[in-house]
Amino acid sequence: MKICLIGAGRIGAVHAIAIASDENANLHSVVDFHQESAEKLANKYNAITLSMDEAFENNEIDAFIIASSTSTHADLIEKCAKVGKPVFCEKPIDLSLDRALACAKAVEESGIVCMLGFNRRFDPHMASLKNKVDANVIGLIQSLIITSHDPEPPSMDYIAGSGGLFHDMMIHDFDMACWILNDTPRSIYVSANAANDDVAKQGDVDTASVIMNMNKGAIVTIINGRQASFGYDQRIEAFGETGMLQVKNVLEDSVILSNSSGIKQTKNQHFFLERYGKAFHNELVHFMESFQSGTQPSVNISDGVIALKIAEAAKESLQSGNSINL
Amino acid sequence: MKICLIGAGRIGAVHAIAIASDENANLHSVVDFHQESAEKLANKYNAITLSMDEAFENNEIDAFIIASSTSTHADLIEKCAKVGKPVFCEKPIDLSLDRALACAKAVEESGIVCMLGFNRRFDPHMASLKNKVDANVIGLIQSLIITSHDPEPPSMDYIAGSGGLFHDMMIHDFDMACWILNDTPRSIYVSANAANDDVAKQGDVDTASVIMNMNKGAIVTIINGRQASFGYDQRIEAFGETGMLQVKNVLEDSVILSNSSGIKQTKNQHFFLERYGKAFHNELVHFMESFQSGTQPSVNISDGVIALKIAEAAKESLQSGNSINL
Amino acid sequence: MKICLIGAGRIGAVHAIAIASDENANLHSVVDFHQESAEKLANKYNAITLSMDEAFENNEIDAFIIASSTSTHADLIEKCAKVGKPVFCEKPIDLSLDRALACAKAVEESGIVCMLGFNRRFDPHMASLKNKVDANVIGLIQSLIITSHDPEPPSMDYIAGSGGLFHDMMIHDFDMACWILNDTPRSIYVSANAANDDVAKQGDVDTASVIMNMNKGAIVTIINGRQASFGYDQRIEAFGETGMLQVKNVLEDSVILSNSSGIKQTKNQHFFLERYGKAFHNELVHFMESFQSGTQPSVNISDGVIALKIAEAAKESLQSGNSINL
Amino acid sequence: MKICLIGAGRIGAVHAIAIASDENANLHSVVDFHQESAEKLANKYNAITLSMDEAFENNEIDAFIIASSTSTHADLIEKCAKVGKPVFCEKPIDLSLDRALACAKAVEESGIVCMLGFNRRFDPHMASLKNKVDANVIGLIQSLIITSHDPEPPSMDYIAGSGGLFHDMMIHDFDMACWILNDTPRSIYVSANAANDDVAKQGDVDTASVIMNMNKGAIVTIINGRQASFGYDQRIEAFGETGMLQVKNVLEDSVILSNSSGIKQTKNQHFFLERYGKAFHNELVHFMESFQSGTQPSVNISDGVIALKIAEAAKESLQSGNSINL
Repeated sequence: MKICLIGAGRIGAVHAIAIASDENANLHSVVDFHQESAEKLANKYNAITLSMDEAFENNEIDAFIIASSTSTHADLIEKCAKVGKPVFCEKPIDLSLDRALACAKAVEESGIVCMLGFNRRFDPHMASLKNKVDANVIGLIQSLIITSHDPEPPSMDYIAGSGGLFHDMMIHDFDMACWILNDTPRSIYVSANAANDDVAKQGDVDTASVIMNMNKGAIVTIINGRQASFGYDQRIEAFGETGMLQVKNVLEDSVILSNSSGIKQTKNQHFFLERYGKAFHNELVHFMESFQSGTQPSVNISDGVIALKIAEAAKESLQSGNSINL
Repeated sequence: MKICLIGAGRIGAVHAIAIASDENANLHSVVDFHQESAEKLANKYNAITLSMDEAFENNEIDAFIIASSTSTHADLIEKCAKVGKPVFCEKPIDLSLDRALACAKAVEESGIVCMLGFNRRFDPHMASLKNKVDANVIGLIQSLIITSHDPEPPSMDYIAGSGGLFHDMMIHDFDMACWILNDTPRSIYVSANAANDDVAKQGDVDTASVIMNMNKGAIVTIINGRQASFGYDQRIEAFGETGMLQVKNVLEDSVILSNSSGIKQTKNQHFFLERYGKAFHNELVHFMESFQSGTQPSVNISDGVIALKIAEAAKESLQSGNSINL
Repeated sequence: MKICLIGAGRIGAVHAIAIASDENANLHSVVDFHQESAEKLANKYNAITLSMDEAFENNEIDAFIIASSTSTHADLIEKCAKVGKPVFCEKPIDLSLDRALACAKAVEESGIVCMLGFNRRFDPHMASLKNKVDANVIGLIQSLIITSHDPEPPSMDYIAGSGGLFHDMMIHDFDMACWILNDTPRSIYVSANAANDDVAKQGDVDTASVIMNMNKGAIVTIINGRQASFGYDQRIEAFGETGMLQVKNVLEDSVILSNSSGIKQTKNQHFFLERYGKAFHNELVHFMESFQSGTQPSVNISDGVIALKIAEAAKESLQSGNSINL
Repeated sequence: MKICLIGAGRIGAVHAIAIASDENANLHSVVDFHQESAEKLANKYNAITLSMDEAFENNEIDAFIIASSTSTHADLIEKCAKVGKPVFCEKPIDLSLDRALACAKAVEESGIVCMLGFNRRFDPHMASLKNKVDANVIGLIQSLIITSHDPEPPSMDYIAGSGGLFHDMMIHDFDMACWILNDTPRSIYVSANAANDDVAKQGDVDTASVIMNMNKGAIVTIINGRQASFGYDQRIEAFGETGMLQVKNVLEDSVILSNSSGIKQTKNQHFFLERYGKAFHNELVHFMESFQSGTQPSVNISDGVIALKIAEAAKESLQSGNSINL
């Protein structure tokens, strides 16, 4: 299977390693507007570089991986739909729900496999919790609490183009909630503010608590923050009829120091590249397995649309101060 | 110091042990409508039994502890105010906010010490977190999450007279939030339902998530449930500018079993008598220290009034589906 | 049941509280060469003070608790044997094995209940492990590791009269090993040295690792040290055919601080008064239950003799550098 | 850098992946007496297969990795010495100390880089502990405890050719002790037996506790076992003047299940391929860095000789029942 990678940045490099580690995948080509980046990444894996047009005309390519900037996602997915080739695209589809809906329609009409990069679904820890939930280990879930704190705020440039906390960061948690519960929300209430003045100036928030009432009855609580001195804070707690399942944070190492100031462990793994390293690998394996076996991947473009709809409602709740029905 | 204990039930017995363990306190007398219970408890500590009227006329008594049923609290506190004697009363003051306000006014006018039994403030674990918060160990608190699950639902009779989840159970968490943050809420939003059909028939809920926006800016999230198969679930998480403080659950013992099915520890301590055993003792020590030194206890009748106000707003939010301003 | 307490020091006070907390026990009298100490403790519990002679002639007394210095233990136990009254005595019986054997013979001939204060057997955590071992939860035990570090070395005066590390400190672990395994050692090998120069000058050691081969085949490893900056370090690990059981340390509280320097908990509970507080209470309850029901307590004078024999062999191994057969 | 891999079995495959993941390394060729295995592994990485003779005559090869059976190690290391090429060899050098000494002499005379595969030194958790010890975080180490239990016994065929528990399994712990303490033992005492009858029939043991007195004064305790129902048990505890450092076990995932039977986590990572996956990668990176920079690797053939000497003394102690001086 020959794969063309669009986007030779940080996430692109992560996908290239995942391809190289997989027995059945081959990095065929790299596309990036910044030719030097494309060449550097391609050379490392004996791949070629292509222009965007060349890539979509190339008959050797079996599938595309899109790891370029958000604003290009919908266009590139539609190009894949046009040439009828499977595509894996980083989330989100687009910051605009309308644009995403149009793109999803194009994908649906084309019938291509289109998998979205909600990587947390493929984290071994999150997936283990989900498996136990599905196996009914704790019975019907009554309450789900998702906690996510980044280690440090992104640059203000990044924030400016991010679509805001709900579209950029909490969108992962919206997807996780729907995935774990096999459900969607009927209402959402948001409380949020900006602890960081620069974030406030961008019109964004960096600290938020959210309650969603799900259609089947569960209550979902999401806690988000852009700054955690102890590293990437990624926890889940599912409370069911007969028990509770939790995903705890993953620490840098398993060393414990006991001395006169107490019992001390290291911080959490720093950020998503460390914490979700295996998830990036596993999601690509799933994508490759899907298009080899001709089955739909477990997460596709409609999941991206749902998460976007929730993010828009979250923004509305923050502005109005009220609970919003979906 | 001679103490008269009103109420010889389960909590009364706990207070009697705390009195016996304290160097400076003496259980003078026990009052209970059920004379046999009063006598049994009194005999164990060489104390006498009194009728209610005798108790309030007795000149030897230095202070009263009220551990009788909720409906008697306000009347008994007012009697203490009338005779000008210090009183420790179990929470809540009354299920009716108006009644509580009237009672608080009587206490204020009399100038007596009136301490309310928000025992969790005196739990060594909770108090350790509070001390660290006050010592600025994690900077300004941005988010506070309080989780409380009882091990099993109370009887339907109990529920019928309890005033509902918010007045009976979450009132502890309302008080904890105000105490830890030295703040009060400006708005509250509630999502709740009844997982247990019998609870629903009582018009009550047993599963709830609540968000409060505090006046100084912190966001408080409270998770409550009436049933947890793994024992009493009592956790706090304070997330601040420079770190996070958590109170974890207390397990029955420190034994770990590792075998082919995994790594296993015991359940949480079963319920409040085990988990807050030391807190019941510590709160009484604080009460006795307060009236010996002539200072106000750290938790008094006004704290009870505030918690009741929040509980009423919570009920209103649940009924309306909207955020309620306080 | 009327109890006479001999010894009004630190441990004596602990026993007095345990008596006061027990429904069926009464502190009848206190004996101490230092009359002021005896009076202070007696007054607190409305007890009387007696001279040693008066105590053993007093017909009201049902049982004795010996909490005086080690050198008086054997004589006082023998006096109890003479007057035919039950006795609870702190360990050890004596520093000399011969003296202990003579004392044990006197006890045996008299038929009195004589319980020795190996308090760790009554710690809820240790007892939970022992119960699981007896219930065959991990099958036949192949290896048992006992770790014990004091928070700080005792005074050199104490060390001078202590009989040395093996008789004073590790004797608890010798007893624990025999108790948990229902077995005795057939050989012992010791490696030890003195990290503290003052301890070395006393001819004692403060750091030791010991291996015992037990008669039924298990291998016991004991690690001891007189100094641990992180508090009292009391752990057990039983490794069996089908699993492992561990007793972990007990921390001062359950608060966790996460910040830029890592994840931090408090130190261990500081020393034996905190860590084994419940054990002191439970052992006394067991003593009172035993003589009320007329049954032998689970730990008696022969257990004290066995532990002393092992301690002597340990000393011999240290001197010779060889494994010693028992 | 072109690398020839000798041995295409399980460990050979692990090394091939490590080479593929490294930017500067290239798998040039694979040698295995079983040609089919060699071809399968070579094809996956576009490498060639060579006979043993061809490999040592090939001028393109920069370095050798030896992952063949133990009996071939010394001969192959000597061939590398003869052709003057850097070599990484799995431990042990040989089961015979004399053979290992001769091999070490040949390496020394040739001046080649010869790194031994004591992979645990390169485990991130073990390395973190070692770094903290070297940074004097806990002061002078008084006691070091190393615990190692395999998840299940190897086949009796494997045991027959393994050289026994001390040469095959505990040799890792002998090396760890010397590495962590920068020291060597002056005496060793062993207690061991065979819980498994088949192991006993092989004349080997499967359960052992060992005490080593180190030259600089520390006491080392090693606990080994061939069977642990809860997975690979790999722990270290260094107890120093000012604190304690521990490496805890690594679990399969971070999910916690709390229900009516207690609080449960997964088992340990199953065995060395999972637990030391990163270590296999890191040791190869270190080897490649060493021969690129022309410096000696941190673990070389003399470390292998020392570990073998200790293993022989351990066997002698087991046979004699006495402590053996080294």
